[in-house]
Amino acid sequence: HALFDVSEHSHRRYNPLNGEWVLVSPHRAKRPWQGQQEQPDNVLLPAHDPNCFLCAGNLRVNGERNPDYTGTFVFTNDFAAMMPQAPNVPPDQEALFRVGNARGTSRVICFSPDHGKTLPELPLGAIAGVIDSWCAESATLGAQYPWVQVFENKGALMGCSNPHPHGQIWATEFIPNEAAAEDRQQRAWHQQQGRALLLDLAEREADLGERVVVQTAHWLAIVPFWATWPFETLLLPRFAVQQLPQLNALQRTDLALAIKQLTSRYDNLFQCSFPYSMGWHGAPFDGRDTAPWQLHAHFYPPLLRSASVRKFMVGFEMLAEAQRDLTPEQAALQLRGLSDIHYREA
Amino acid sequence: HALFDVSEHSHRRYNPLNGEWVLVSPHRAKRPWQGQQEQPDNVLLPAHDPNCFLCAGNLRVNGERNPDYTGTFVFTNDFAAMMPQAPNVPPDQEALFRVGNARGTSRVICFSPDHGKTLPELPLGAIAGVIDSWCAESATLGAQYPWVQVFENKGALMGCSNPHPHGQIWATEFIPNEAAAEDRQQRAWHQQQGRALLLDLAEREADLGERVVVQTAHWLAIVPFWATWPFETLLLPRFAVQQLPQLNALQRTDLALAIKQLTSRYDNLFQCSFPYSMGWHGAPFDGRDTAPWQLHAHFYPPLLRSASVRKFMVGFEMLAEAQRDLTPEQAALQLRGLSDIHYREA
Ligand SMILES: O=P(O)(O)O[C@H]1O[C@H](CO)[C@@H](O)[C@H](O)[C@H]1O
Ligand SMILES: O=P(O)(O)O[C@H]1O[C@H](CO)[C@@H](O)[C@H](O)[C@H]1O
Repeated sequence: HALFDVSEHSHRRYNPLNGEWVLVSPHRAKRPWQGQQEQPDNVLLPAHDPNCFLCAGNLRVNGERNPDYTGTFVFTNDFAAMMPQAPNVPPDQEALFRVGNARGTSRVICFSPDHGKTLPELPLGAIAGVIDSWCAESATLGAQYPWVQVFENKGALMGCSNPHPHGQIWATEFIPNEAAAEDRQQRAWHQQQGRALLLDLAEREADLGERVVVQTAHWLAIVPFWATWPFETLLLPRFAVQQLPQLNALQRTDLALAIKQLTSRYDNLFQCSFPYSMGWHGAPFDGRDTAPWQLHAHFYPPLLRSASVRKFMVGFEMLAEAQRDLTPEQAALQLRGLSDIHYREA
Repeated sequence: HALFDVSEHSHRRYNPLNGEWVLVSPHRAKRPWQGQQEQPDNVLLPAHDPNCFLCAGNLRVNGERNPDYTGTFVFTNDFAAMMPQAPNVPPDQEALFRVGNARGTSRVICFSPDHGKTLPELPLGAIAGVIDSWCAESATLGAQYPWVQVFENKGALMGCSNPHPHGQIWATEFIPNEAAAEDRQQRAWHQQQGRALLLDLAEREADLGERVVVQTAHWLAIVPFWATWPFETLLLPRFAVQQLPQLNALQRTDLALAIKQLTSRYDNLFQCSFPYSMGWHGAPFDGRDTAPWQLHAHFYPPLLRSASVRKFMVGFEMLAEAQRDLTPEQAALQLRGLSDIHYREA
């Protein structure tokens, strides 16, 4: 009988970072698609939009006026999901109905005054400015909150409600589910192996090469072995570092390059502004040992076959387990085969 | 200072069924929405569509012809995510790159020959026929596989690639992530409390009433205290039962009524065919003690404010923790306030 072939036979892969499995169905990419078509995002936007709440000098939803900013611009979200002050939840609780405190804050970070340029189209210096803001905000908020979630929702497909390139930073007095899972898994690995899980991984993946998408002096972007989204990537430092504020100037400059190359490849894949949610995970700011942790960024892009056909994580995925239709190695091969110069700049 | 008010202040709620938390931000429903608008699903479809792969007597993708079925019609998916036969994965594995076997099968179940009628618009007898098929398929597949996932993706918004009302059944040789979490949590609860978690819950919720949406002689639909999707519901038996095939005739007939009422309320909420993924969870067919388990169905609908504005589980949700913009009690109140007669039948 036949031998197991990873690009032929359905199998599961284990994600050691969060402890979950993913179902891989390589043969399924062949099925015809008659479902929903998305609006491809390939419209050039002006550098300034007078109706945009985020453009420099414009009015925001709450009536405040944005400054004439030239680099990044950070402000507290006018509709934050959490408040810094809120009364404590009641102490007596039924086991069936447990509540917890969820104080926190939420900031918006405009990447640049240019309404029409997303990360891959910004010059390296501007991307470095975004990285500096991520680091500075993490340091400030980390002094007050144990968890600081830096992220970007890019594209209407990812629920982004304003096309002006921007990200968000939510800081919470609690360690959220996904962070708690990564914390648990990295501590267990560190205890068993005596090293940081993701430092091991970066070395091993750089050696193997087959899942590598971008490689710079200090950074490595791979499609992880356990990727759930079709073209998901994991952006890893090739040196030990636990939290964003610890990055030095050289590492930040090189990170700007890695991000520009990775997001340019993304846009080049289907010649569109490639939607995704991305965000950073680093050791919690809660005083515990940070050694098991390694700083990293996840990119979760939904597109599967073209600028208008996405992967739906529904039904089986919601009720049972994430499932993917091409192997991570196939996805990495495609992304690696593209230019790292953005198609609009080429 | 102010007292904690559950419908005012941000807080977290704990889901004892899967062990995850959800962030609740009741004040956030007020924010303006300028993001993506969905296509409302309110078009009447014909009872038969000559181009539909699932209609009675028509040709399928693979060239086979469907029978002239009158009730439900079940067949093996032409593009299944798993194969019943596949070679074993290699035994030697690096800790960083673990793979597991994922043999299984996947069936499609057409709910009725009527191309234009989703569950709430079918007569009770036809819904009971769907329930009978769910039970029969679970029994057959459960004899071979430890996990049988019955589900429905309804609507293009939920990745459904064919509007002909149908569901799916994926049977797997492994216990998927979400099933494993529910298994762990229910066993722990049973050990500590000596009773089944969801049987306790159904009794308590029927007493409290504030999260109840539909109540029949034998079934209860609630917006669970820990709901993540805006109008998520949990459909619970009010008697001890662990697996679909165990349901008797009376319980099935009454379940048809509960489903008709629940899904009619859903459609009535925004006067559209309400999209969702739904599915059943019951004790695994793996020979272990089933007493800690209680059979139940989850409904995960994405719409938030109208037939065209959905909740996006992106950014913070993907990287950190699910977040919701209205309380489960507010959602239950809205659903309870609607008629249980479908707006097209009223
Ligand atoms: O099987 P379908 O309806 O073609 O496909 C749909 O349901 C599957 C199971 O939930 C998902 O994996 C697919 O992403 C989704 O598009
Ligand atoms: O904050 P925004 O961009 O208005 O909203 C978006 O991002 C949030 C954080 O990921 C999500 O909770 C919302 O569902 C999404 O629409």
